[in-house]
Amino acid sequence: MAKDKQVEQITDMEVDFAQWYTDVVKKAELIDYSGVKGFYVVRPYGYALWENIQRAMDDKFKATGHENVSMPVLIPESLLQKEKDHVDGFAPEVAWVTYGGSEELTERLCIRPTSETLFCDHYSRIVRSWRDLPKLYNQWCSVLRWEKATRPFLRHREFLWQEGHTVHATEEEARAETLQMLDVYADIAENWLAMPVIKGQKTEKEKFAGAMDTYSIECMMHDTKALQAGTSHYFGDGFAKAFDITFTDKDNKIQHCHQTSWGASTRLIGGLIMTHGDNSGLVLPPKVAPIQVVIIPIAMHKEGVLERAALLLERLKQAGVRAKLDSSDQSPGWKFAEYEMKGVPLRLEMGPRDIEANQCILAPRAGGEKQTVSLDELETAVETALASIQQGLYDKAKAHLDAHIFPAQTAAEAASIIENKGGFVKAMWCGDVACEEKLKTDHAITSRNIPFEQERIEETCLVCGKPSDTMVIWGIAY
Amino acid sequence: MAKDKQVEQITDMEVDFAQWYTDVVKKAELIDYSGVKGFYVVRPYGYALWENIQRAMDDKFKATGHENVSMPVLIPESLLQKEKDHVDGFAPEVAWVTYGGSEELTERLCIRPTSETLFCDHYSRIVRSWRDLPKLYNQWCSVLRWEKATRPFLRHREFLWQEGHTVHATEEEARAETLQMLDVYADIAENWLAMPVIKGQKTEKEKFAGAMDTYSIECMMHDTKALQAGTSHYFGDGFAKAFDITFTDKDNKIQHCHQTSWGASTRLIGGLIMTHGDNSGLVLPPKVAPIQVVIIPIAMHKEGVLERAALLLERLKQAGVRAKLDSSDQSPGWKFAEYEMKGVPLRLEMGPRDIEANQCILAPRAGGEKQTVSLDELETAVETALASIQQGLYDKAKAHLDAHIFPAQTAAEAASIIENKGGFVKAMWCGDVACEEKLKTDHAITSRNIPFEQERIEETCLVCGKPSDTMVIWGIAY
Repeated sequence: MAKDKQVEQITDMEVDFAQWYTDVVKKAELIDYSGVKGFYVVRPYGYALWENIQRAMDDKFKATGHENVSMPVLIPESLLQKEKDHVDGFAPEVAWVTYGGSEELTERLCIRPTSETLFCDHYSRIVRSWRDLPKLYNQWCSVLRWEKATRPFLRHREFLWQEGHTVHATEEEARAETLQMLDVYADIAENWLAMPVIKGQKTEKEKFAGAMDTYSIECMMHDTKALQAGTSHYFGDGFAKAFDITFTDKDNKIQHCHQTSWGASTRLIGGLIMTHGDNSGLVLPPKVAPIQVVIIPIAMHKEGVLERAALLLERLKQAGVRAKLDSSDQSPGWKFAEYEMKGVPLRLEMGPRDIEANQCILAPRAGGEKQTVSLDELETAVETALASIQQGLYDKAKAHLDAHIFPAQTAAEAASIIENKGGFVKAMWCGDVACEEKLKTDHAITSRNIPFEQERIEETCLVCGKPSDTMVIWGIAY
Repeated sequence: MAKDKQVEQITDMEVDFAQWYTDVVKKAELIDYSGVKGFYVVRPYGYALWENIQRAMDDKFKATGHENVSMPVLIPESLLQKEKDHVDGFAPEVAWVTYGGSEELTERLCIRPTSETLFCDHYSRIVRSWRDLPKLYNQWCSVLRWEKATRPFLRHREFLWQEGHTVHATEEEARAETLQMLDVYADIAENWLAMPVIKGQKTEKEKFAGAMDTYSIECMMHDTKALQAGTSHYFGDGFAKAFDITFTDKDNKIQHCHQTSWGASTRLIGGLIMTHGDNSGLVLPPKVAPIQVVIIPIAMHKEGVLERAALLLERLKQAGVRAKLDSSDQSPGWKFAEYEMKGVPLRLEMGPRDIEANQCILAPRAGGEKQTVSLDELETAVETALASIQQGLYDKAKAHLDAHIFPAQTAAEAASIIENKGGFVKAMWCGDVACEEKLKTDHAITSRNIPFEQERIEETCLVCGKPSDTMVIWGIAY
C-alpha cells in the first residue's frame, strides 16, 4: 500500500459532486491518468471490477446463443462511408491513421469508433443462405471517439466495451433480439450492479447513427442526473442494403437481412460509483465486488490470531466467496478506512476475545447492521449478509429513483422542477424534434427515453401544447 | 452451415504446406480476411479456441499473483522514444495517428506495438516505496506492427496477445519472475496445447529491443520449421532509469527498480494447427478444443434416436465436457467430414442398433482407436478417451521433435542437414554475432535459442572454428 494514502481526503459529495467522483476514482485506485487526454489506465482494482461485470454479461450472452469474435481495430475510410447516416454520426470524432511505419498510406484508416461497418463487411462475405442465419456475434474490445470533454469511466476517448452485432432473416427476429438484449442489460444493471433502470425507446433525435430504432436503459445517479447505461439498436435492412448482405431464403429468393447491434461499456463502473458511493468512498454491490469480504485480524501479534484468520480465509474461499485477509503491519484503523474507501461490501473482524468465544464480527460497508456471528455458522452468515447488502443497495437506489421522478405539464414547470428538486421529469411530448430541441436550448434538458411503462400525465405536449399521447422521461444527462 | 463448403478441398500438406495451412485456417472457419492487409477477423470457432487458451493462461497468471490492467492503445511519440534500444526496435513498424477528428495532432501518437513505455510511465507515477513492490501486471489486448509479409495467426499487423509487465525491488526477484513466466508458457504449450518445447535463452542478436536477456520457448512444426511460441524478458534497470522508476528501500535509500515483460499471442493457434493438423484439416488437443465431443446420431429419423442423443448431450455437459449434438438435416457422412475438418477430438456415433445394445461408438479424430462403449460407462469412457488423445498428440509431436534434431559440427554440415532432412541443428557457437549473421546470410538459418539443456557436440564454433562451450539450436523459423 502506498504510504501516503490519505483516506480522509475525499471531497464531500454535497460540497462538489464532480470532485467527489474524481477523488473516489483516483483514491480507490480504479484509474490513473495517462499522458494523452481522455486515455486512462484502468488499474487492477478497476479492471477486476470490469472482469466481474464482463463475466456476468458474457455468461448471459452465451446462454442466449451468442458467440465472441474479434474484428480489426482499423476501418478504411471508404468502408466507414458506406452507410450515410452512420458516417455522418461518427466521422467527425474518429482518430485517423495516416502512416504505417515510414510510408504514407494511400487510404486513411480510422480507429474503430464502433464496428458496424466491419461486421457488415464480414457478414456480406459469409452469409449466403437461410441456413447461415442468424449470426449472433459479440466482441469485447476498446473503441475510440475523439471527445472534447473527458471524464474517467463516463467519457473516455478510448473506452472498453462490448458490441453485439447480429444478422437475421426477418424483421420480427431482429426486433425480438433487440429487445432481448435490452432485457439482458436491464437484468445486469438491476440484479448485478443494483442499479434500477428505466427501459424505453430513444427519440429520433437521440437514436444511434444508422439505426431505425434505439432502445436504452437509463439510470439515476446520486446527484439525480441521468446515465444512459446500455443501448440496443434495430437497424432494419439499411446496413444490409448498403453492404449488400443478402441470403437465399427457403423459396430460393434473394432477401436482404435484418440487423441489430447493442453495446455497454466501462461507463457502467461510473454508474456504480455514482449510484452507491458515499463520502467514505466506493460502495460496491457484492455480486461484482473484486473483494467481497475483507478479514481484518485484531491484535494480530497475539498468539493464534493470524492462524485463525487464515483458516477463515480458506473456509470463505472454499465457499466460493472472494475473500482477502489483510495481514499487513498497518493498524486495524488504517485498514478499516482503506477497505471502506475501496467499497468492500463486508468486513470481518476477529480478535483474541472473539476467538475465545468462537465468534467473529461482520460489519457491512453499507446497507446493514454490524453483527456478531458464531464461527460454526460463518459461511451461511456471510452468504446471507452479502445477499442482504446486495438487496439493500438496490432498494435504496430504487427509492432514490422513485422519489425523484416528477410529473410536469409545461416546459417551465419541468425546468423549475429539475432546477430546484433535481431528478427526472415525466411529461407528454408531441413527437416533434423542434420541441425537444427547444427544451435542450432553453433548459439543457434532454429526452432520456420513451419508457415502456407509459402514463397519461396530460393531454398535450409540454412545449407546444399540441395533443400528445406519448410520455417521455426528461433530465440532465452525463 | 454454408451449403458450398467442400471438405475435400484442402491441399495436401505434402504438396504445398503453406497452401494446406491457409486452406485449413479458412475452411475450418478460424479466420476471415478483412479489407486491410494483415488485419484479420477471428471467427467464432477461432475465437473460442483463443478463449480456452486465454482462460488456461489467465488462471496461471492469477495463481502466480498477477493482476490484469488496461493501458491506452496509443503512445505519444515522445514516450516511445524514451528508451533508445526499444524505440530503434519498434519505431520503424508502428502505425501513426496524426488526426483526431478534423484537427491535426500536435504530437503523433502510435498504436502500441507493445506497451513497455506505457507501463513504465504508469509505474513511474505509482511506485514510491518498497511497500509498493512488486507490481505484477498483465494486459490482454491487441497490438500493431506494420509487417510487410503477413499470414493468418503467424504474422498479423494486428494480433491478439497478452503482455505481462512487472517491477521488482531486486535483480534476483526480477530474474526469478522472468524464468517463472517462461515455465508458465512451457506448461501451457506442453500440457494444454500438446506442443513440446525447447526452453532457452535468445542470443544478443535475437533478443527483445531494450531487454538485457530474452528467453523463449521454441516449437517444431510439422514441416520441421521452428515457431517461437512465447518470450520472457529481463530488463535490468534500463527502463527504470529511462523512465525514472524509483523506490525508497527499507534503509530509506532511493533505488531503481528491476523489470520484466513476457508475451504470448494468437500465434499459438498457428502453432497448434501446424503441429497437429493433417490432410483432413484441424486436429485439436481436447484441453483447448471448443467442442471436445460431437454427437452424431445415425438414422436420426428413427424413433427415439434424437431423444437418446439429446440425453447423452446432457450427461456429457453435466460431466463438464464441451459437447455438441449435430441434429441438422445433413447426412452423417457430411457431418463426419465437417467435424474432422474442425478437429473435434472425439466423435460419438449412436444409431438404433446401438441404442438397443445400450452402447455408442467413440471415434477419436487422431491419436487413438475407435471403440464401442457401454452407455453405463459413458462419462468415464469419454474422460479416458480425451485424456488419452491429449497424451497421444503430445507423444507424437515429441517424437517428431526428437527425430528432427541433429548435431552438426560445421556450417556446411548444418546447412546440408536442414536442406535435406529439415529439422533443427544443435551445434556449438562462439558467441560472436558475425558467425550468427553469416549463417543467416549464407543459409537462411537462424539461432532459435541457447537451450537450458546443454550438450557438448564439439569443442569449436560451427562457423569460425574458435573454441566454444555454448550449444545453440538452429533452424528455419516462421
